[in-house]
Amino acid sequence: MVAKNLTSPSLNISIGDRETLLKQQGKIIWFTGLSGAGKSTLANALEVALYQQRVHTFLLDGDIVRLGLNQDLGFSDADRTENIRRIAHTAKLMMDAGLIVICAFISPFRKERDLARNLAGDGRFLEIYLNTSLEDCTKRDTKGLYKQANAGTLKNLSGVGSNYEPPVRPEIILNTAELSIEQSIEKILALL
Amino acid sequence: MVAKNLTSPSLNISIGDRETLLKQQGKIIWFTGLSGAGKSTLANALEVALYQQRVHTFLLDGDIVRLGLNQDLGFSDADRTENIRRIAHTAKLMMDAGLIVICAFISPFRKERDLARNLAGDGRFLEIYLNTSLEDCTKRDTKGLYKQANAGTLKNLSGVGSNYEPPVRPEIILNTAELSIEQSIEKILALL
Repeated sequence: MVAKNLTSPSLNISIGDRETLLKQQGKIIWFTGLSGAGKSTLANALEVALYQQRVHTFLLDGDIVRLGLNQDLGFSDADRTENIRRIAHTAKLMMDAGLIVICAFISPFRKERDLARNLAGDGRFLEIYLNTSLEDCTKRDTKGLYKQANAGTLKNLSGVGSNYEPPVRPEIILNTAELSIEQSIEKILALL
Repeated sequence: MVAKNLTSPSLNISIGDRETLLKQQGKIIWFTGLSGAGKSTLANALEVALYQQRVHTFLLDGDIVRLGLNQDLGFSDADRTENIRRIAHTAKLMMDAGLIVICAFISPFRKERDLARNLAGDGRFLEIYLNTSLEDCTKRDTKGLYKQANAGTLKNLSGVGSNYEPPVRPEIILNTAELSIEQSIEKILALL
């Protein structure tokens, strides 16, 4: 089947060609916040909501990346930096494929989040800061990490033994202790 | 717009969901061969041919990866191994997004190509070996690398100062000194 309503590409397929075919513009949606802030929950709910609108997405999170691409990295500051650097570049490649790439990572340092923002370019990066308090995150303790950190058996947990640098000008701030999942998703979709 | 003919996903979007939406199955098409064998030329021509069939693709090659994700790596055996390891995982993530991922890398070692094959899984990996001879590649010397290697100013060029391990059971073997671009693409499309 030959596509008739596509401009004939010359030697290479460009980002714009891929976006034309997908009928959407590639973007990176980046969730940042402490462990337990609700990043994965919202990222998954957002992907479901976008899917129902027939939007082509991919979700990158710690589970998927730490087991494969970044399996050689630990949790020292240097390794966290390299972890997010690689993720930023991977997200950029997927964005160049025309996808809406949803990233859910603590991503504690500004520098690497800004790298992702700069790679994505103007209007293609949406930083969503979940500013749920350390107290609320500790109460939830979804993964049992705060218990370990406070007992001293887990070092480097962001907000406890390791630094977390809040975004300076995120596109959206959400406190998941005050907003329902539906309300949060509504706010994100409104901005998209 | 709500999609009516899609099954309603539960909490997460699966690989199968994404493929349903894209109306295609994710795959990895992996070109391997010496420098100058024609990997980038064929990879680009293949992407154009697939685009004309409205197939959603992405092309990963040395230029795109060495400047970003793998900018910290050089050309020692260890760095080449890590280079292809990361590319294999990145290609797998893009395949899981439902894309046909076209990879064009010398990828001199069997182990990392087999890693990519194993990550992709049965029926989703197509290894295309460009067995254009070292003599023919040296004659072409597309990037001037053989001249440098033979003058001793470039170490580690695959086939000269560094080892190249040919695939044992590639899905396709093409000699670009004997086949035109069109003939080569035809053979690949026939297998897809």
